[in-house]
Amino acid sequence: MPHQYEFPRAALTVDAVVFGFDEAELKVLLIKRGLAPFKGRWALPGGFVRVQETLDDAVRRELEEETGLHQVYLEQLYTFGEVKRDPRERVVSVAYYALVKMADHSTRAATDASDAQWFPVAATPPLAFDHATILQTGLERLRGKLRYQPIGFELLPEKFTLSQLQHLYETVLGTAIDKRNFRKKVLGFDLLEALDETNRDGPHRPAQLHRFNPAKYERLKKRGFLFEL
Amino acid sequence: MPHQYEFPRAALTVDAVVFGFDEAELKVLLIKRGLAPFKGRWALPGGFVRVQETLDDAVRRELEEETGLHQVYLEQLYTFGEVKRDPRERVVSVAYYALVKMADHSTRAATDASDAQWFPVAATPPLAFDHATILQTGLERLRGKLRYQPIGFELLPEKFTLSQLQHLYETVLGTAIDKRNFRKKVLGFDLLEALDETNRDGPHRPAQLHRFNPAKYERLKKRGFLFEL
Repeated sequence: MPHQYEFPRAALTVDAVVFGFDEAELKVLLIKRGLAPFKGRWALPGGFVRVQETLDDAVRRELEEETGLHQVYLEQLYTFGEVKRDPRERVVSVAYYALVKMADHSTRAATDASDAQWFPVAATPPLAFDHATILQTGLERLRGKLRYQPIGFELLPEKFTLSQLQHLYETVLGTAIDKRNFRKKVLGFDLLEALDETNRDGPHRPAQLHRFNPAKYERLKKRGFLFEL
Repeated sequence: MPHQYEFPRAALTVDAVVFGFDEAELKVLLIKRGLAPFKGRWALPGGFVRVQETLDDAVRRELEEETGLHQVYLEQLYTFGEVKRDPRERVVSVAYYALVKMADHSTRAATDASDAQWFPVAATPPLAFDHATILQTGLERLRGKLRYQPIGFELLPEKFTLSQLQHLYETVLGTAIDKRNFRKKVLGFDLLEALDETNRDGPHRPAQLHRFNPAKYERLKKRGFLFEL
């Protein structure tokens, strides 16, 4: 059954802003384009949506194909539809953002790909298309969400010290945080399990390791609990 | 320059969840479909994106064509891409939500359209396509945003009493709010201008009218101010 605006129609892509945190900097995973347009330029991983796959399936497939990443935390970010954003023709892109535990196995596979590389968010090379705008949108979403959803844990190793958690917040938000207030607030949520393990790395005295309890968060959220840091 | 997944390709639509508040209930603006599929069923206003218009332009055009609304507060909500969401063929829809001051002129034009009608969000008729899911997503976004962005003012008349503001929050969030705490918090933000006017309507004694100051909010936000109710 044809309809009025059926042809010509825009092409549809997905793109992913993949964030990682290496305990010093917030990073973003970029791929080097092998084909025109913008051949040789760095870009967000992504590609064309197949007509028989969902948007979520498309971005997971592209991430695995281009960076080796799979089973990452993924959320839809925004859909970019400026008419001239692709020099070939009209292409609308549904952007996602992903959060990756850089210390885990999954990320090693990603960095095996010769044309996939982590860059500090604060020092990326020039990007193809409108990907700088998409990256900026992803960064703003991450900063916003960090304050009212416990998504920061997706960027940390499974077991982390409170100093690591605080440093993540300080790095992403770009502000210094008072240590005592931060600990009081974070522990007050009762969402962390204190483990009988310490972190022996580094020059400091051993610090206790903690683990985030996502099941408990889901239970609290259903009762109207608000996470706000 | 043709590319691998160019054809077949999905069609692209925009849909809008238009919220209004009539001082008693939260409402949503629906249109009655004149054509198959789902002929005669109520649906969100929306339609196909033209290949030479942005997504924002497409949703503004469709809103004006189908409901007479223009110059409303509009934000992108989410893009819905389930493969079978349209019985005709693959259609991906970029959904927006709009907030409308029902007391203003713009809305009267909207209700002139014979097939556009406001329904209480809590009592909508069966909707076409996956529009019930889109409406639910819009409602969750509205509830979430109301807590940390002063968007509620978009649903109120330009001049409102603190009781009207509180009632809006109670209605949308579905919870009772302590009057004294609410007033203290709202006035503490220093974002409202108290006017030398009172509301003479209704059986209660006259209440002072207030006006939201969006320019002041923008200035405060740049300095890191967080609105949290």
